[in-house]
Amino acid sequence: MKITEMKVTPVSIADAPLRNSIGIHEPYVGRIVVELVSEDGVSGFGESAFSTQMLADLESVRDVIVGRDALQITQVRQIIDSRLHPEAKDSLDGVLQAFDLTPRRKTTAVERTFSPIEVASLDLVGQSFGVPVCDLLGGRVRDAVPFSAYLFYKHAGGGGEGDDARDEIYPEAMTAKAVVAQAKQMIAEYGFPSIKLKGGVLPPDDEIEAIHQLRAAFGPDVPLRIDPNCAWTVETSVHVGKELAHELEYFEDPTPGIDGMSAVRKELLAAGIEMPLATNMAVTSYAEIQESVEKDAVQVILGDHHYWGGLRSIAELGRLCETFGMGLSMHSNSHLGISLMAMTHVAAATPNLTYDADTHYPWLHPEDDVIEGGKIAIKDGAVGVPSTPGLGIEIDRDALARGHERFQRVPYRDRDDIGYMRRTVDPDWEKLLPRW
Amino acid sequence: MKITEMKVTPVSIADAPLRNSIGIHEPYVGRIVVELVSEDGVSGFGESAFSTQMLADLESVRDVIVGRDALQITQVRQIIDSRLHPEAKDSLDGVLQAFDLTPRRKTTAVERTFSPIEVASLDLVGQSFGVPVCDLLGGRVRDAVPFSAYLFYKHAGGGGEGDDARDEIYPEAMTAKAVVAQAKQMIAEYGFPSIKLKGGVLPPDDEIEAIHQLRAAFGPDVPLRIDPNCAWTVETSVHVGKELAHELEYFEDPTPGIDGMSAVRKELLAAGIEMPLATNMAVTSYAEIQESVEKDAVQVILGDHHYWGGLRSIAELGRLCETFGMGLSMHSNSHLGISLMAMTHVAAATPNLTYDADTHYPWLHPEDDVIEGGKIAIKDGAVGVPSTPGLGIEIDRDALARGHERFQRVPYRDRDDIGYMRRTVDPDWEKLLPRW
Repeated sequence: MKITEMKVTPVSIADAPLRNSIGIHEPYVGRIVVELVSEDGVSGFGESAFSTQMLADLESVRDVIVGRDALQITQVRQIIDSRLHPEAKDSLDGVLQAFDLTPRRKTTAVERTFSPIEVASLDLVGQSFGVPVCDLLGGRVRDAVPFSAYLFYKHAGGGGEGDDARDEIYPEAMTAKAVVAQAKQMIAEYGFPSIKLKGGVLPPDDEIEAIHQLRAAFGPDVPLRIDPNCAWTVETSVHVGKELAHELEYFEDPTPGIDGMSAVRKELLAAGIEMPLATNMAVTSYAEIQESVEKDAVQVILGDHHYWGGLRSIAELGRLCETFGMGLSMHSNSHLGISLMAMTHVAAATPNLTYDADTHYPWLHPEDDVIEGGKIAIKDGAVGVPSTPGLGIEIDRDALARGHERFQRVPYRDRDDIGYMRRTVDPDWEKLLPRW
Repeated sequence: MKITEMKVTPVSIADAPLRNSIGIHEPYVGRIVVELVSEDGVSGFGESAFSTQMLADLESVRDVIVGRDALQITQVRQIIDSRLHPEAKDSLDGVLQAFDLTPRRKTTAVERTFSPIEVASLDLVGQSFGVPVCDLLGGRVRDAVPFSAYLFYKHAGGGGEGDDARDEIYPEAMTAKAVVAQAKQMIAEYGFPSIKLKGGVLPPDDEIEAIHQLRAAFGPDVPLRIDPNCAWTVETSVHVGKELAHELEYFEDPTPGIDGMSAVRKELLAAGIEMPLATNMAVTSYAEIQESVEKDAVQVILGDHHYWGGLRSIAELGRLCETFGMGLSMHSNSHLGISLMAMTHVAAATPNLTYDADTHYPWLHPEDDVIEGGKIAIKDGAVGVPSTPGLGIEIDRDALARGHERFQRVPYRDRDDIGYMRRTVDPDWEKLLPRW
């Protein structure tokens, strides 16, 4: 199963003006599609976030990949680890720097570079053997993988610019009422069994109100989560935690850092509130787990195979979380169908992945995905686990070419949520973590 | 890759009169060979320790296995977990009870039952796909897996009884001088790069002397280890640790329990001695890791795919140990070539498995293995990682039948190191952990 070719294709996809704690999504977001071709002419695909550094890092390891057996993938991780320049390890992803997370992410560059290669190689191996990717990971423990409705405060518009501007799928939502409407629209279309609100945008009491209104609208049985991306102090986090003690399935990244999360946990426990804290920011790599466990900082890790070094690594993370009494859920950024399917396969194979996963997929415009036959179906809130070989998707090469042409045409490269916030919403905008 | 047949074959193999802290090996030890046959007529093999309960547990899950796709193996673990009777979980292995370890091993019965099934299914899948088992685990990170010379205090004799009595491979060794001679003989034949002495047999100062004599005989660069199987109090363990501060690569299970190991660690650190403590007794399942980490009880875990639930589980354990700054080595009991090859494949695929692994394989009489072509070669202390499909071994069905016939003929079933010690060495023998 010798790899004879590695194609690295950056694409731009329209992104709606979604708000978060540091700013707003620009009209386009970049993704990188990695294709590995075997000597038998089989192609496997993986996908990663785009950054200029990431693109350079992927290009820099091409010689490690081409000529290698697709089954010899752990070697690749070791070589990338030995190869990537220590400084590159700090500068991989602009948005991580924006969130001040890079100092803790030294090893993450290796895992991020390795991830799309590992996924593509598993896709290639699965197709070559005629079995789904999940069967390369021990087989499925579930036949469908449930996701949560991922709500955002947002301005009007659907992303893209000029001739490429997209109709908005979801209208402006800057109030609790509009967020409830967004949830109703999304759940009507996809049937998601749980709801996550990206917070950190409005003053905390407004977001508490949004959660209460979601509870009122959807009844007592729909799990709710809020993720303000470190927008709150420990004090504010504890305040919100107390207000929402009976509402939240878990409370994601209210405040920055392991020490901050640990302090929130301690105060909530002291108040008799057992609500698990979840994270995709305080703990984003194996290097941070030991300290987090020692300080009981988080009780749910939102794994993300893009950050954590691929699908086998998420399976290993599942076992680790189980061992330390932690839950495992899944994080998402804006992404294509390739990553949705990679998430689906690893979730299918990982017993401890018992929370509904996050996905931005409802926000992706159908014309921007690169999957043959259009976007992957989400039914009753879940993606069916394919029984077809590999990831179980065919790539629409015309759509991929259009995405790349768009990338060449538009000026957006590394994410700049802060700058775009200044240019379009508030010229005096400052990143403040925590803000409240 | 549907499994159409599951064959469970207990065999008896001659075992030399090796001493340990609770007694002596009986003339025969049982192993169980598990064969899974696919509808295409491919056979995959796995091996486990024998116990009456284990045999019953394996038989009790036959209906879970037959009819299932060999790739759907994580499901099997879940079903075994739901199926095995809670009391069975405590009584799986006589020797574990003898060591007073069962109260901590509730989940181990599930993992032990699952392990030979998982190995057999990986062997079957690898053969069906035409790739070695290590390639199903991410591929090899090393081409040969080094093992250590596993020395024992022993009485004269080679094991077996009557017409089946085996010539002794290694003569009586009840003194430091004889232990050095055993090491020389074993290393001359196999080239092992490191040495482990099974201790807990002679008074501690005699065993300290044995380590010093091994150091004198083999020079400063050969890693040495001692494993008294919990024969010593904390105080004695600290005494030995201080005496051997400059000699031991790691110090295995000097004293019982996580609290005991933690106390030894603390006192050694206080004395400025950084020697890692290793275990196959204080921590033998995922259920014990969190407490061990909290108490810094062990710094090296001796994984054993028979205890820990198969090869993927050992790979996961490797990641977990790395995450918490622990080393991973490999434990062994008396075993056949099937398990040696399973150990070799998982060690080949696991980056953090950086210590030379334990193996009893030199103690196995060539006429007792069940591998076509005789015992697997160990060269320069290492087993080459096969490139042939599956585990890379062929089973000698005549040898397997002879082993089973021997099992039916001899009276030895569950291990009884204590009783045999009373019958052959010391009628007043009592198990005492710690003894000194």
